[in-house]
Amino acid sequence: MDSATTLAVAQAEGFECHALSFSYGQRHRAELAAAAEVARSHDVLDHRVIAIDLRLFGGSALTSDTPVPLDRVEVGADVPATYVPARNTIFLAFALAHAEVTGAQDIFIGVTAVDYSGYPDCRPEFIAAFQAMARLGTRLEGVRIHAPLAELSKGAIIEKGLALGVEYSLTRSCYQLDDAGISCGRCDACQLRLAGFAALGLIDPVPYQVA
Amino acid sequence: MDSATTLAVAQAEGFECHALSFSYGQRHRAELAAAAEVARSHDVLDHRVIAIDLRLFGGSALTSDTPVPLDRVEVGADVPATYVPARNTIFLAFALAHAEVTGAQDIFIGVTAVDYSGYPDCRPEFIAAFQAMARLGTRLEGVRIHAPLAELSKGAIIEKGLALGVEYSLTRSCYQLDDAGISCGRCDACQLRLAGFAALGLIDPVPYQVA
Repeated sequence: MDSATTLAVAQAEGFECHALSFSYGQRHRAELAAAAEVARSHDVLDHRVIAIDLRLFGGSALTSDTPVPLDRVEVGADVPATYVPARNTIFLAFALAHAEVTGAQDIFIGVTAVDYSGYPDCRPEFIAAFQAMARLGTRLEGVRIHAPLAELSKGAIIEKGLALGVEYSLTRSCYQLDDAGISCGRCDACQLRLAGFAALGLIDPVPYQVA
Repeated sequence: MDSATTLAVAQAEGFECHALSFSYGQRHRAELAAAAEVARSHDVLDHRVIAIDLRLFGGSALTSDTPVPLDRVEVGADVPATYVPARNTIFLAFALAHAEVTGAQDIFIGVTAVDYSGYPDCRPEFIAAFQAMARLGTRLEGVRIHAPLAELSKGAIIEKGLALGVEYSLTRSCYQLDDAGISCGRCDACQLRLAGFAALGLIDPVPYQVA
């Protein structure tokens, strides 16, 4: 949902976009099929899936056998069990390499600070620090890291995406997404998403396992 | 050579070390066998090889069919053909993830600014910016990125390493290293290395294809 909205924002600002997804040993790998559908529906220049083996590192409920916390939202608490160590640093590092090869000067990422669930690598200060580092570590001296959702609640993200024509029926957010693309409805990601639609008086168009 | 010396410095400072190497589609993949020998000789806690597909991005003579420049050293010139886009950013991002999982607060990297051959991601300002970003993007609020070779010439690196017992016969630097571990003697990396030994009046103990 956040990535699709971010893509729509970038295109609305006039950018032609290369789309990047990451296969990192996540349990919810069906999100990659959803990402491909979203990329097709948005007419991107290309969509690449970068395989990285984060399971090597363990340490997260998203990539190991640690259970995903259910039926409670951890926002504002400590760093949650679903935090993947340095994930956005690694994602942005690959995006930076891709940008340097293609000559792109703008990288968009769908992190949100309002509903950031305590992930340190979703904070605006982190994004600003990554940009400063990227300008020193590459030939892209003016590269910009855009996080257009940083200040938006889930409801505001959905509102913006609907205005830009995002088909949320194609998107998936669930940390326990099954291979058929059915969301659990109980993990953090599902609860935040459902609350976002509810705040707008809308029904989330994706299928859930629990009513 | 630089990585082995960096490892020796870290151990001399009292650190117990996890060693990380990267298999990134480099032509000179025999350097990974050399790295394993170095790790064994230094009694590290463990040595992991992280596979990342940088060939996806192309753009460098080290990972594509572009020829490696021979018989001239490009130091101080523009960014050279052997520059791999955002390589050290990606390497450090993986090291950061590994540090966060193991609880390590110190990451060592063997970049050198004196002989840095025009790679933007070998500059001390880049290392400092990466550290600032890493502290914001992880739970490691005091993580330190050490670049103990940053201010040293190749000759000074070798002098330091010999004093710490580094066996340079185990190390390899060549960008065109063949599968038998024989160095070309003509690429940037070979020429800088050979000049370093020569500056100390020493003979490099590794085998070369050209006399």
